[in-house]
Amino acid sequence: MEKNIMYADLIRDKKFLCVLRKTAAAEHARPEKLIADIRRGVTVITLNKNRSIARPCAIGRGLSTKINVNIGTSTDRNDLTVELKKLELAVKLGADAVMDLSLGGNLQKIRKQILAESPLPVGTVPVYEAAMNAQKREGSFLRMSKKEIFDVLTEQAEAGVDFFTIHSGINQKSLAVFLKHRRLMDVVSRGGALLVRWMRTHNAENPFFEYFDEILALAKKYRITLSLGDGMRPGSIIDATDAAQLSELNELGKLTLRARRAGVQVIVEGPGHVPLHQVEKNIALEKKICHGAPFYVLGPLVTDVALGYDHIAGAIGGALAAMAGADFLCYLTPAEHVRLPSLDDVRDSIIASKIAAHAADIAKGIPGAIDWDKKLSTARKKRRWADQIRLAMDPEKAERYRRSSHPKIEDACTMCGEFCSIRMIDDCSGQQG
Amino acid sequence: MEKNIMYADLIRDKKFLCVLRKTAAAEHARPEKLIADIRRGVTVITLNKNRSIARPCAIGRGLSTKINVNIGTSTDRNDLTVELKKLELAVKLGADAVMDLSLGGNLQKIRKQILAESPLPVGTVPVYEAAMNAQKREGSFLRMSKKEIFDVLTEQAEAGVDFFTIHSGINQKSLAVFLKHRRLMDVVSRGGALLVRWMRTHNAENPFFEYFDEILALAKKYRITLSLGDGMRPGSIIDATDAAQLSELNELGKLTLRARRAGVQVIVEGPGHVPLHQVEKNIALEKKICHGAPFYVLGPLVTDVALGYDHIAGAIGGALAAMAGADFLCYLTPAEHVRLPSLDDVRDSIIASKIAAHAADIAKGIPGAIDWDKKLSTARKKRRWADQIRLAMDPEKAERYRRSSHPKIEDACTMCGEFCSIRMIDDCSGQQG
Repeated sequence: MEKNIMYADLIRDKKFLCVLRKTAAAEHARPEKLIADIRRGVTVITLNKNRSIARPCAIGRGLSTKINVNIGTSTDRNDLTVELKKLELAVKLGADAVMDLSLGGNLQKIRKQILAESPLPVGTVPVYEAAMNAQKREGSFLRMSKKEIFDVLTEQAEAGVDFFTIHSGINQKSLAVFLKHRRLMDVVSRGGALLVRWMRTHNAENPFFEYFDEILALAKKYRITLSLGDGMRPGSIIDATDAAQLSELNELGKLTLRARRAGVQVIVEGPGHVPLHQVEKNIALEKKICHGAPFYVLGPLVTDVALGYDHIAGAIGGALAAMAGADFLCYLTPAEHVRLPSLDDVRDSIIASKIAAHAADIAKGIPGAIDWDKKLSTARKKRRWADQIRLAMDPEKAERYRRSSHPKIEDACTMCGEFCSIRMIDDCSGQQG
Repeated sequence: MEKNIMYADLIRDKKFLCVLRKTAAAEHARPEKLIADIRRGVTVITLNKNRSIARPCAIGRGLSTKINVNIGTSTDRNDLTVELKKLELAVKLGADAVMDLSLGGNLQKIRKQILAESPLPVGTVPVYEAAMNAQKREGSFLRMSKKEIFDVLTEQAEAGVDFFTIHSGINQKSLAVFLKHRRLMDVVSRGGALLVRWMRTHNAENPFFEYFDEILALAKKYRITLSLGDGMRPGSIIDATDAAQLSELNELGKLTLRARRAGVQVIVEGPGHVPLHQVEKNIALEKKICHGAPFYVLGPLVTDVALGYDHIAGAIGGALAAMAGADFLCYLTPAEHVRLPSLDDVRDSIIASKIAAHAADIAKGIPGAIDWDKKLSTARKKRRWADQIRLAMDPEKAERYRRSSHPKIEDACTMCGEFCSIRMIDDCSGQQG
C-alpha cells in the first residue's frame, strides 16, 4: 500500500515528468520504466524544484553510470575563476553532476555563481557552510547551532541546490561503535570529522540525525535529493568494511526508508578506500542494507599508496564498483590527499572516471554503450584518423598526441610506422575469403 | 613420471639456483616452493644462461604480479638516447622486465646497448628483426627466410636476450578459423600481422610453428623463456573471446606442453581488448587451456575509446586480470594507438601498471603487499609528510605536488586547510576511549 503511493506527487508534477521524459530518451529507456524505478526508490532524478537545467540526469538501476566532479575553493586557495573553469571543463568533458565543496571566500556568492553557470545538477555539503559561518561569527565551528544549520539549508534550498550530502548516519550509536573499535585512519570524511568533533565536544546527538525529519520536510518542499554521506568511510584499505563503516551503513539503511516515506528522493554514499577483492561485496551490502537505493561511491581507492595517481587507483575501484551495481561515481584527482586540484588534474580525473563508468556500462550491457567502441574501432580499422580522434573520449588530447608526432606514412602512426599491423593486414585482405 | 623430471637440469644448475634463492627471498617465498612451481610449469625465472643481472624476477603462481615495460625505436622515430632513458626510468620506478621492440635503426646495436644497461630481464620479438633484415636485404619483409629467422634467433640468444615472444600459435589451422569468422579489427598484433601476411603470400605454414622444435632446442641451449605470442588477440572489445582468439589459444596450449617437455620455460601472452565482464573468464580459460602456464596480459583494455588514456583503461583491465590470476602485466601507454610514447608517457604508464599489480597483490594476499599501504597510511595519519611522500609509489610526483601548493598550516594540505579531517579528529582523540 505504502509502496504504491511512494513519490506520488513527484510523478504528478508536470515539470518533473517533462525532465523525466528527457532523461529517459537520453538513456534509451522507456519513461514508464523510469517512473516505476523512481517510485521503488532505486532511481532518482536530482533536480531542485526552483531550477531548470539543460542537462538533468537520472541515477539508478539499469541506467548509464553517472560521474560527479567536485569543485570549490579551500581556506588556503580561494580563486573562483579557477573553480568556474573546472565547472566549464566538467560540462565540456561530459560529467553528469558537480558538487560545490567550497570552504574559502564568500560561500554564498561562489555557490550562486556555480548554480547560475552549471547546466548540470549541483550538490553541496551544507555542514561546511554552517561550520564556516559559526567559525566566522563565533570564532569556532564548534559553536555551530541548529539555527545556523537550518539557515544554511534553507538558503541553499531556495537558491536551487539539487542535492545535499547529509551526514545523518553518524549518531551516538554508530559513534559508540567507532570509539569501541579503533581503526588506522579514524574519520577522514571532512563533514564526518566536523560532526564527530562537534558531538564529542557537546556530548550531544548529531543535529543532522536529531532533526532529520525537519531536513526531510525542507528537502521535500524544494524537491532536493538527499545523498546520505558516509562519515565513517574507511580512509585506508586497512579500515575497509570494518565495524564503524558497517554500523553507519545500518543507520543509512534506516534513514533511506525514512526519506522514502517522506517522499524525498535518496541516494547513499559509499567508500572510500576498499581493497579490490572487497569492492563487489561492499556494493552488495549497500544495496541490501539500503533497500536498493542508488549508490554513490567515492572511488573506491584500491590502494593507499598511489599518492599523485589517485585518479587511477580510483578508476580501477570505480569500474569494478559500477560493474557490481554502483550507480554514481565521484571522481578522484591526482591531487587527492596532497593539494587542491589544478585544471589539469580535473581533466585527467574526469576522463579516468568516464573510462571507469563506460567500461562498466559495457559490462552491464547498458543500451548504446558498446556502440561507441564499435564506431571508434571501425574508424581505427579504416585508418580514418579524423573520425577516430573525434570519437575519442577526449578528442583534444588525442589530437594533440597525433599532431605531436607526425608519421612518414600519412594513415599510420609513429609507433609502428610502415609496420602498422592494420595496414599489413589490409594489404592482404583481397586474399581473404 | 615425465612430470617428475621436468626442468631437472634447470634445478641442478648452480647459477640458476642462486638466482632462484635471491628471487625467493625478495618474494618472501620458500625456495622449495619456487622450485616445485617451476617444475610444474606454473612459475618461470626469465634469465638467459649467458647473462647475470642485478634484478632477476620470477613470474607465476603465488608471487607478486610483475610488470613489463616496452621500449624501442620505430621506423619513424629512431633515437636510442630516448629509449635508454625509458629503460632508466623503468629501472628507477620498479618495473620487473623490459622488452626491446625496436624496428628503426641498427637493431643489433640498440639491443646490445639495452642488454648492457638493463639490470632487468630483457625480452624481444625476434620476428621483427628477421623481417627488417629481409626488408633491408631483399626489399620486402615477405622475403624473410628460415635462415634469416634462425640467424636472428641465434644471434639474440647468444647476446643474452632472456625471453622471446614467438607467435607460433598462428598456424594454418588457427588462420583458417580467423579467415572463416570475420572480426572487426582482424589482426592487430604486429608480429601476428607480419606472419599472417607472410603465410598468405607464400601459402605456407608459419615458420615459427613449423620449426618450433628447432626453436625449442635453441631456447633450451641458452635457457631462454618462451613467451607464446597472441597474434590473434582481439584489437577491439567487439572481437574479444571470439573464435580466432580461442583457436589460437588452443594451439598455445599444445605448444606449452611441447615447450615443457623440451625443458624450456614458457609463459603465454593474452589479450588485448576485453570488456570488463569477460576479463576473469579470459584468465580462467588461459589457465585451463594452457595447463596453468604463467599468463602475460597486454592490458587488457576494457574499452576502445580511451585514446590518449589507454594506460588507465589498461590499468583497470590489468588489476582485474591480475586479481583473477594473471601473473605478468605489459604496460600500456597513453600513446598507444597514436604515437611512439614519450618519457612522460612511460612514467605515467609504469605507475598505472604498478597500481594495478599492487591492488591485485593486496586482493590475492601476496605476503607483504598490504604492509606498504599500512605504512603509508600510518604516516598520513600522523601527518608525517616526508614519510608519506617517501612511501608513495612515485615520490617525485608526490613531492612536486606537495611543493606546488604550500598550505598555511604546515602539516595540512591545501585541499582542506584548517578543516583537515585528520587534524580535526586528532584534536579530540584525547576524549576517545
